[in-house]
Amino acid sequence: MIQAVRTALGDKAVIDDAHDIEPWLHDWRGRYHGATPAILAPDSTAGVAQIITLAAAHGVPLVPQGGNTSMVGGATPPADGSALILSLRRLKRIRHVDPTANLAVAEAGVILADLHDAALAQGRRFPLTLGARGSATLGGLASTNAGGTQVLRFGTMRSLVAGIEAVLPDGQIHDGLAALKKDNRGYDLDHLLVGAEGTLGVITAVTVRLVPAIAARAVAWVGLSSPHDALRLLHALESTTDAIESFELLPAESLAAVLRHIPATRAPLAGAHRWHVLIEAVASDAGAEPPAQLLERLLAPALAAGLAADAVIAASEAQAEAFWRIRDSLSESERALGPAAQHDISVPVERMPDFMLDAAAACDARFPGTQASGFGHLGDGNVHFHVRAPAGMDAAEWYGDLAPVVTSYVHDLVTAAGGSISAEHGIGQMKLAELQRLAAPARMAALRAIKAGLDPHGLLNPGKLLALARGPATP
Amino acid sequence: MIQAVRTALGDKAVIDDAHDIEPWLHDWRGRYHGATPAILAPDSTAGVAQIITLAAAHGVPLVPQGGNTSMVGGATPPADGSALILSLRRLKRIRHVDPTANLAVAEAGVILADLHDAALAQGRRFPLTLGARGSATLGGLASTNAGGTQVLRFGTMRSLVAGIEAVLPDGQIHDGLAALKKDNRGYDLDHLLVGAEGTLGVITAVTVRLVPAIAARAVAWVGLSSPHDALRLLHALESTTDAIESFELLPAESLAAVLRHIPATRAPLAGAHRWHVLIEAVASDAGAEPPAQLLERLLAPALAAGLAADAVIAASEAQAEAFWRIRDSLSESERALGPAAQHDISVPVERMPDFMLDAAAACDARFPGTQASGFGHLGDGNVHFHVRAPAGMDAAEWYGDLAPVVTSYVHDLVTAAGGSISAEHGIGQMKLAELQRLAAPARMAALRAIKAGLDPHGLLNPGKLLALARGPATP
Repeated sequence: MIQAVRTALGDKAVIDDAHDIEPWLHDWRGRYHGATPAILAPDSTAGVAQIITLAAAHGVPLVPQGGNTSMVGGATPPADGSALILSLRRLKRIRHVDPTANLAVAEAGVILADLHDAALAQGRRFPLTLGARGSATLGGLASTNAGGTQVLRFGTMRSLVAGIEAVLPDGQIHDGLAALKKDNRGYDLDHLLVGAEGTLGVITAVTVRLVPAIAARAVAWVGLSSPHDALRLLHALESTTDAIESFELLPAESLAAVLRHIPATRAPLAGAHRWHVLIEAVASDAGAEPPAQLLERLLAPALAAGLAADAVIAASEAQAEAFWRIRDSLSESERALGPAAQHDISVPVERMPDFMLDAAAACDARFPGTQASGFGHLGDGNVHFHVRAPAGMDAAEWYGDLAPVVTSYVHDLVTAAGGSISAEHGIGQMKLAELQRLAAPARMAALRAIKAGLDPHGLLNPGKLLALARGPATP
Repeated sequence: MIQAVRTALGDKAVIDDAHDIEPWLHDWRGRYHGATPAILAPDSTAGVAQIITLAAAHGVPLVPQGGNTSMVGGATPPADGSALILSLRRLKRIRHVDPTANLAVAEAGVILADLHDAALAQGRRFPLTLGARGSATLGGLASTNAGGTQVLRFGTMRSLVAGIEAVLPDGQIHDGLAALKKDNRGYDLDHLLVGAEGTLGVITAVTVRLVPAIAARAVAWVGLSSPHDALRLLHALESTTDAIESFELLPAESLAAVLRHIPATRAPLAGAHRWHVLIEAVASDAGAEPPAQLLERLLAPALAAGLAADAVIAASEAQAEAFWRIRDSLSESERALGPAAQHDISVPVERMPDFMLDAAAACDARFPGTQASGFGHLGDGNVHFHVRAPAGMDAAEWYGDLAPVVTSYVHDLVTAAGGSISAEHGIGQMKLAELQRLAAPARMAALRAIKAGLDPHGLLNPGKLLALARGPATP
């Protein structure tokens, strides 16, 4: 197989030096470790198609890999060395940016930050962003339906992908880049590939939507007494404007941790509040109501009604950045508090306030000495729910023994609340067993039937998302 | 099978009187005619699951049917009487409307107009609407990914469906109604079922998004010289506001036909213009810039730049209605002009102006005496492209001989422009052969693999969308 690829695509398309392969055998957090005899690195869609055709002929499994920033081991090859890595990093052309149609076509290996720059250079914006924007690639972002901090208004990758080019498991190229706004010619292959984690096809390029560049923004910090009030406030805002792009909730203890551990941070409000919300409003129309004025107009009645206890609108861009720095430092400051079990979970938005309080209380009661709390994207029904180890507990003991039990317990609570054990990170290797344990049988049967229909020999990203690599399924 | 359903669900769930069955054997335009020994009419999701389980056990094909308003014969049973109709019309509960979360849960048999009313009663709006709103059901609208006149801002059903409950071909119930905003637990079954025309599962309920009720609207009529200018105008508007909900383009001859054949209509503008656009802008925030003022502010520079030749903003709700009446009368007035071949097609938005002119010229040249023109949803890249029969040609001769040739020719032009032969009506029976002829082989192979994986015995809506009813596919 390796020789066949070398013959078909040349030496540059095969990396088989162990030293060059090494960095790509592990996930970036160092939790998953794999092995492979070679990385295949084509530089075109046609090259990807040739490789997948050869893999089908030789019966060789392939693990697609972009920036290797998966949070769930989704791009790490199996440890037995049975699969080859298919790197998309050389497919790195931004084929075009069309500021009139508000569309861009980027190959799978294009890095998110580069797309941001290319859009900005044309007076447009690609609104999805996240911490790994300097490494994560468009192919990986689409394959995992990535989220991030600006989902509230523009949605996850699924909402921003207008078309997909992919190589299917039989080696044929699906070209959906034309980005038709209306197209009812049968099953939507693009939506099927988004979030499929490379198990149904390998995305080689995406057409993404752009939005107007930001003309003005305003950032507010609000103190309030409960997640319930926070959600009511969000609804009050959203019922009259769609300019709200971020609505991030955090408890007092998270703010305190930031103020204690992150240099040069200060509390935005003078008084003490049990909960805090950061709100960003954005205008793209320079002639429209300025976002600061909009927030003032909409927050005033909320304060008068007691929905919010106090609020301040950043008076300068520097102050706005300072507010955001608190939010962006939450993970770093939490690490300073010691080991924790972290969960990327979602429940229906309306249930999130109850869930945050009830699940934290249930965890605290069930695991004495631990401290549970959630923070994050309230408006998406998605928080990062962390359970911190009891003070003084050894990290090895926590991660080895207690944390997995805590995680199963949290996942049970999420499932009981009608939620998802993976809001934005996907399943990969990490959550495969939990998905199998908790998903409805109807859902698992359907996922398996789709996988068996499209990839009957289980050659694409084996061992991810679904435990299925047994050849064609029989009904 | 019929007896088994009667035993399981009672007499009310089986309609086998020929007189009662008769109206449901034909599509509403009278083009497709089928036969069946019985209509099965359960009144609950559990009942649908029982029927599909029995059908799988007995090997009996089922044709799901809602309001029977398909434009492509998608709900008409096969003529050989081999299938039973599965009517969803008794699943007609609106389970709840949540004006705070902006969500509603409606069963498959709920009629669109009833959902409109239920949303309005709570100060909200379900923004999708179309001519058949008094008959079309939510299950059918979701199964066909319906469009309509308000797609520009809020999208087709696909964008408005937040969750789906469906019975899969094995009789298991998929419950996706929780409407999680973020959920990355593998393949998106909801998106797979939207637009699948009942061939992969039977939708029994949907969670749909609501939007704020309309606080104010403004309707403008613009005269301009080309579809290209119309598209530039749309881009100019959309680059600074997202308040535009409709942007409907029509040629001078369409306006003339309305003025000639529809009583009590008058031209909105004094002068003659080659092309016309109807624009609607909507505000849901009573405190925001009034839409009439917004349109005035945005149209002024377009007029100054020569992009638009003339424009008028309706001065009253009555005048706004009069503008809309012209748009809504286009089909009726076209019928008065004689027989025509009608095509529901889309191309990428940027290509639509060229396509409208080039395709019309190509048709006129290829079929002497015919007259081709398009009108409709320019901003969606979707127009209704009509080719009128030569003056004096007999309708039977046109529909029997020439129209099918014209349609194939138009579909070839659409495909060459990277477009879709079904923008919003689906495939059903009518376009099945054309889809097979024109779709990329990779696409057809993937559609077949998905169908074979989920419905290996081809029991759900046989003969629609895909010509496949041969039992399990082999790889």
